[in-house]
Amino acid sequence: MADTVLFEFLHTEMVAELWAHDPDPGPGVSAGSRGEEVGATTGQKMSLSVLEGMGFRVGQALGERLPREMLAFREELDVLKFLCKDLWVAVFQKQMDSLRTNHQGTYVLQDNSFPLLLPMASGLQYLEEAPKFLAFTCGLLRGALCTLGIESVVTASVAALPVCKFQVVIPKS
Amino acid sequence: MADTVLFEFLHTEMVAELWAHDPDPGPGVSAGSRGEEVGATTGQKMSLSVLEGMGFRVGQALGERLPREMLAFREELDVLKFLCKDLWVAVFQKQMDSLRTNHQGTYVLQDNSFPLLLPMASGLQYLEEAPKFLAFTCGLLRGALCTLGIESVVTASVAALPVCKFQVVIPKS
Repeated sequence: MADTVLFEFLHTEMVAELWAHDPDPGPGVSAGSRGEEVGATTGQKMSLSVLEGMGFRVGQALGERLPREMLAFREELDVLKFLCKDLWVAVFQKQMDSLRTNHQGTYVLQDNSFPLLLPMASGLQYLEEAPKFLAFTCGLLRGALCTLGIESVVTASVAALPVCKFQVVIPKS
Repeated sequence: MADTVLFEFLHTEMVAELWAHDPDPGPGVSAGSRGEEVGATTGQKMSLSVLEGMGFRVGQALGERLPREMLAFREELDVLKFLCKDLWVAVFQKQMDSLRTNHQGTYVLQDNSFPLLLPMASGLQYLEEAPKFLAFTCGLLRGALCTLGIESVVTASVAALPVCKFQVVIPKS
């Protein structure tokens, strides 16, 4: 029962805690405010970076728990498919809804009902609140990829809640 | 696969993050140090309090997810048994090992291999590190009890890793 939502509850508390202790809320924006501007302050950028870093280390650790035979992926695309299926199910109990690529190292992973955004109202109303609920997961993807031997840059964007796109860019080596 | 350890990884990162940003490490103790004294500094006490608070809110939320019929407990002891079985399994995939009471509102819940202490070596070596890995769970128990209508004080003690005792004191109303 509760175990499937434990991660989501803890993630919510973690985001709230990091925002509440925002060390530099900047002029005109009170710490922990629910109405901060889209342009993040220094403190908020640091909080995003902290969340991304935590996600990265959790992703690395999760990656190390993968069965050995799964580590022998043939191609980059196989690894991305693995993240969209196995990793997503392990963390969010659902698969990613779509995966697209330009075959040049850029992948767009789309989740049409991203669980960490679901508690918010749908639509545009709380769009500016979205970034802090995405940073951990960006790190999670980057960390899992890192354990699988792929350096990447992962960003996320939201056009309308709760649809979320993660862009994974893998520099050509 | 990964979902059962996700909570543990995230908990570990959360503790590490709060300790790394210890705002007041006190004289002679460097921030994020792995060798801080048992006597907690102000910053560490605040971190423990933050962890306990996060645990409390997660426990409250978990409590609200419980099936309705479970909320009709006859006696206090039934509620404690429920925590030792269902809640513990939901969070840690195991039951508490023993539950004792003096029948006057004090309960001692013992876990002989508490999962959040398992990554540390057994015995006495890292005993002084234990409190920061217990605060969240103390809050979790207090929060779940609160949702079930019971105000309590929850503390934890460790005599030898990874054995852990949680003491729940319920003031007579």
